[in-house]
Amino acid sequence: MKIVRFSQAGETHYGILEGSSIALIDSPYSLVATGESAELQEVKLEVPIQPKKVICVGLNFADHAHEINQEPPSEPLFFFKPSSSLTAHETPIVLPHQSQQVEIEVELAIVIGKRVKDIEPTQAKDAVLGFTIANDVTARDLQFRDLQWARAKAFDSFCPLGPWIETDFDPTQKQLTSRINGDTRQDSPTSQMVFDPWELISFISKNLTLEPGDVILTGSPSGISKIVSGDQVECEIEGIGILRNNVT
Amino acid sequence: MKIVRFSQAGETHYGILEGSSIALIDSPYSLVATGESAELQEVKLEVPIQPKKVICVGLNFADHAHEINQEPPSEPLFFFKPSSSLTAHETPIVLPHQSQQVEIEVELAIVIGKRVKDIEPTQAKDAVLGFTIANDVTARDLQFRDLQWARAKAFDSFCPLGPWIETDFDPTQKQLTSRINGDTRQDSPTSQMVFDPWELISFISKNLTLEPGDVILTGSPSGISKIVSGDQVECEIEGIGILRNNVT
Repeated sequence: MKIVRFSQAGETHYGILEGSSIALIDSPYSLVATGESAELQEVKLEVPIQPKKVICVGLNFADHAHEINQEPPSEPLFFFKPSSSLTAHETPIVLPHQSQQVEIEVELAIVIGKRVKDIEPTQAKDAVLGFTIANDVTARDLQFRDLQWARAKAFDSFCPLGPWIETDFDPTQKQLTSRINGDTRQDSPTSQMVFDPWELISFISKNLTLEPGDVILTGSPSGISKIVSGDQVECEIEGIGILRNNVT
Repeated sequence: MKIVRFSQAGETHYGILEGSSIALIDSPYSLVATGESAELQEVKLEVPIQPKKVICVGLNFADHAHEINQEPPSEPLFFFKPSSSLTAHETPIVLPHQSQQVEIEVELAIVIGKRVKDIEPTQAKDAVLGFTIANDVTARDLQFRDLQWARAKAFDSFCPLGPWIETDFDPTQKQLTSRINGDTRQDSPTSQMVFDPWELISFISKNLTLEPGDVILTGSPSGISKIVSGDQVECEIEGIGILRNNVT
């Protein structure tokens, strides 16, 4: 099932996408149909959820850690992106003047469905609403200059998310791909993750409370690449779809 | 004027505190009186605002930077605390088992009142709703082990905030004090800040969009001190009040 959030005629709604039709629902958690419907081509897709926090896991693919000269951590390393960095499918990534090296990072994003704390990996699946696609856009020059991975990943539009939340998704062996103007830049399976999604949810929940709508970005594989104005970026995850954003 | 957020009989409200009486308002931004009132001693004060993001400025007092062997930065350095770390005046700071060195940091907190982007320091005052008191509780051992200042500052209850938002406050020359069980640990004036609140708001707004309710923690002076279970912590800012939390 694909949960979408969209706007039409100045109002924002949640719905379930079936083919090209959207059946409206009251909330992404209760999924109660309102009886209304809309057509996909007549609406604007929005960021599919409004998280209280976006938690990013760093260096969770060994090949990516090595390409930026870091060792994979012995336990998950996480940091935060602000909600103001979220941007929807088919909206622009805006390059800030502060950076000369903005790069893309395709990531599998977990959307949390329940308030949880201190759970084990075996309990993690039950806490998940579904999965979507994220692009952890990063000003690589500022990331290394600031040392803290905060500002470099926090600019407005630096967290494309979408196009929808897929609830029927097994993250075990799925391909993550990113393309710039059609050229493949990242192309690795989720099996290369150092910590799998269930281990990440458990670890994070032992450090802080996860709340409905919270989003966890699970790390990016190797092949991170610079983008420039005019580029078209596609992040694809097998079994979910394609998240597409132009660069301005 | 002191804006409070409080709960009573299972409902949460905003109000304006005058003496021991609270005049209820519809929102902290429009400040329209509802005509209802409450008595301070009959309500529970809550975190005074619900921010979309909590932005923390690091190393903004030269004396504190030096005590943790860091140089003050040449431009503001910021990072994020998640909203799940917020806790109210008179609620407990809960020590996590992951750390053996949890420390307190009294900080002046700015509460943003308007959506702003790319503003100058001279425009910053107009973007502010008011000021409150924060305690940037930090697991110092994890801060240095993780390198990223994220998990160490993100545990539940690691961001006491309150007790209220003071709208009539000039941050120019005010004393910040923290006490553990009555013993003074931090005691420095805001004039020792490397970047003043207006410079911080301007700098941050040039990197990301600030939204109503967003909170900026402006950095902590020297004297950071370890807390243990049973301690009572008081963070005081001249002209605002006292934020008090016990440690469990």
